[in-house]
Amino acid sequence: MTAVAARPRAAMSEQALAELKALLGDRLSTAAAVREQHGKDESYHAVEAPDAVAFALSTEEVSAVVKVCARHKLPVVPFGTGTSLEGGVGALAGGVCIDVSGMKEVLRVSTDDLDVTVQAGVTRKQLNEHLRDTGLFFPIDPGADASLGGMSATRASGTNAVRYGTMRENVLGLTVVLADGRIIRTGGRARKSAAGYDLTRLFVGSEGTLGVITEVTLRLYGIPEAISSAVCAFTDIRGAVDTVIQTIQAGIPVARIELLDEVQMGAVNRYSKLSYAEAPTLFFEFHGTSAGVQEQAEMVSALAAENGGMDFQWATRAEERNALWTARHNAYYAALALRPGSRGWPTDVCVPISRLADCIIETKRDLAQSTLLAPLVGHVGDGNFHLVYVIDPDRPEEMAEAKRLNDRMVDRALAMGGTCTGEHGVGYGKIEFLAKEAGNAYAVMGELKRAFDPDNLMNPGKVVRL
Amino acid sequence: MTAVAARPRAAMSEQALAELKALLGDRLSTAAAVREQHGKDESYHAVEAPDAVAFALSTEEVSAVVKVCARHKLPVVPFGTGTSLEGGVGALAGGVCIDVSGMKEVLRVSTDDLDVTVQAGVTRKQLNEHLRDTGLFFPIDPGADASLGGMSATRASGTNAVRYGTMRENVLGLTVVLADGRIIRTGGRARKSAAGYDLTRLFVGSEGTLGVITEVTLRLYGIPEAISSAVCAFTDIRGAVDTVIQTIQAGIPVARIELLDEVQMGAVNRYSKLSYAEAPTLFFEFHGTSAGVQEQAEMVSALAAENGGMDFQWATRAEERNALWTARHNAYYAALALRPGSRGWPTDVCVPISRLADCIIETKRDLAQSTLLAPLVGHVGDGNFHLVYVIDPDRPEEMAEAKRLNDRMVDRALAMGGTCTGEHGVGYGKIEFLAKEAGNAYAVMGELKRAFDPDNLMNPGKVVRL
Repeated sequence: MTAVAARPRAAMSEQALAELKALLGDRLSTAAAVREQHGKDESYHAVEAPDAVAFALSTEEVSAVVKVCARHKLPVVPFGTGTSLEGGVGALAGGVCIDVSGMKEVLRVSTDDLDVTVQAGVTRKQLNEHLRDTGLFFPIDPGADASLGGMSATRASGTNAVRYGTMRENVLGLTVVLADGRIIRTGGRARKSAAGYDLTRLFVGSEGTLGVITEVTLRLYGIPEAISSAVCAFTDIRGAVDTVIQTIQAGIPVARIELLDEVQMGAVNRYSKLSYAEAPTLFFEFHGTSAGVQEQAEMVSALAAENGGMDFQWATRAEERNALWTARHNAYYAALALRPGSRGWPTDVCVPISRLADCIIETKRDLAQSTLLAPLVGHVGDGNFHLVYVIDPDRPEEMAEAKRLNDRMVDRALAMGGTCTGEHGVGYGKIEFLAKEAGNAYAVMGELKRAFDPDNLMNPGKVVRL
Repeated sequence: MTAVAARPRAAMSEQALAELKALLGDRLSTAAAVREQHGKDESYHAVEAPDAVAFALSTEEVSAVVKVCARHKLPVVPFGTGTSLEGGVGALAGGVCIDVSGMKEVLRVSTDDLDVTVQAGVTRKQLNEHLRDTGLFFPIDPGADASLGGMSATRASGTNAVRYGTMRENVLGLTVVLADGRIIRTGGRARKSAAGYDLTRLFVGSEGTLGVITEVTLRLYGIPEAISSAVCAFTDIRGAVDTVIQTIQAGIPVARIELLDEVQMGAVNRYSKLSYAEAPTLFFEFHGTSAGVQEQAEMVSALAAENGGMDFQWATRAEERNALWTARHNAYYAALALRPGSRGWPTDVCVPISRLADCIIETKRDLAQSTLLAPLVGHVGDGNFHLVYVIDPDRPEEMAEAKRLNDRMVDRALAMGGTCTGEHGVGYGKIEFLAKEAGNAYAVMGELKRAFDPDNLMNPGKVVRL
């Protein structure tokens, strides 16, 4: 791991530690291994260990911990599963990590209203397991089996967003502990509301910097009558992206439409022992009635054929579909397996779909002139794609080259009307990009942060720098 | 009009007036008729005239006006079409009304990306007229031909929300003038983003209390290949509502599903010279492929038959559909026509759909024991319904009775997990309800307001009371 510049760390007094111990007993840890594990996420970012880890079991406990921290001016860093990608869990200024992974209760399911309330530590897979006999499911799927609190905090999305939206569209309400320990409930269970400021959407995507999310109310969906998948390789990447654009423009309600480039397809073949063509490839999923999914697949198949699609393979059997999506889901690990011992630096721009082909082609041209290995996957129905730089973070020249290419790609995306992050969030890895993207609205974000957290104790150093 | 309690009004100095005149010339008016017209909306709320009306033509002009107001500590009240229903445009503390209805430019349309940027004064009908040859449309339809700035500011929705969402889901970005005159751009053109705090959603629904919206970037949709409508009367209201619930639970992607009760159907018949059954009635619209809309209509027809639907009439011809929806659109005016010279007090609760039948039936039971006339219409796919109290605001006993019934209905909706306003907003008519609904999150809304508007000059007295 490369060292990061030393930052001022709050001293954690014996008194503060004693107060937290009194609250949590054994569920407060200062063991080095526990602190280290809580100071790193799934990306290349260096470990930034907190001074202590508090394993909270309820909203009230989170509130009590936050109150102790507020009194002692200690930073608070929420932790779900540690699967963030922009250093969201790093304790840049030390302090107390609040691990909510023990808050695993599904508090309420309403099959009639298609909604559910969960504690923040419930993961998306746990929720779907819980829902198994109800005929309902929660669609948002960022790949990792992340906690729903963490997914809310980073405004996560993933493969299903083109049809079902992101966490922004699917969180109905939240319970949040504010910087002074107050507990508030935002939103509600009505499907729409015009009642005051949209605090729910303010906390969704705030990455723990405005408060700690402890409970989440989510929309659910009926499992479709029919689900089918398809895979289609293309002669070139523009043909694949043009198929995506035309599909979206035609209003075909695809549930998933994912691009993997030829490098990623090679990685997937090796990792999952498959034999797909090593060419730019689209993976599709269709949800609807039996007649509906067939109609969707036929429409998309026709568009693919016009754009250089080589062989549109339609899979309706559950095993076929699962094999296909398992291969897609393992893309990140398949990429890392290309170089044993490496780590991944996943990029995350999102552009208006009319610019997607240009953005991808120019980015790959840049990459072709570099020595870095970087497979590409994309949630292309939303205009969002990722490169994964497969790197050794101990080699400064690789880090510098990845940074140079990433800077160029983000500038390219912003020039095309896009965003520096479609779904991974800002953390501390993208603050400069956010400042560039938001213009003078960045200062307003800082003012908002100060209003909610005047002492800058809630996940300090993330999203905005004060 | 009933008089409202006198409020402290900022004195508008000659100096402030002179500065605004210098900026706007003839486009600053202090004429009594102009001020009166800008102090009232479409509801029963009393006129609250501003001291002056500024007809702005650009974001920069709005900013310049706001700066003058900030310097002289004058309230600022934005005005679009004056079609709000909770007193949103009333100048409770005097000051300057900024009328953006002259900001009517469609700044940019991207047919490839399905988005558009408009000035705040463009109305939804004007936008759809502009889009006529593109094959695209903007679906959000609150009934009135409101401005898109105003629709954003109140988080409007209406008949299409069950399929296309509300303004919350369809505003991609905004240009906003803040209380100190700064101009910021929020959001962007990417279909999703995790880049920092969601300022866009914070301003959507803020009703002019955090800033003045001057430009709006919106999602557009392809006009569906096929559109069909249907109408079906039911033996009782529970059967109608159960049909709605089952339709939503089955995931049938209806574009519109509207309930009119027997009183409203009578009003519609008289107003539009029609001969529908005077029974609880559902109006449907289906969007999709030809096969898709037929499949949807058949599924809904089967559900209606199981729930006491009497005669499911399917209309595919454009003239038939237009006649049907014109009747629905005129429901408010049809209600008022039941009593010439009356005004409407439209209510607006929204509950989880499993509670919708109970909420409606209990509300109608209350109403049956009152002398007030109040037809019912509902965007029932979202759990949202409106009574329109047809009243004479000069009769205090009617106002008191409407208030008593409305208080009971809002309490009922809140007890069922609902909201005091599905789409009309808070204005100053619903602040007490919002405080009750939001609990201690209401105080947080106040803190947010103070952070954005420390002098309480932006549409003061609305949403939150400081």
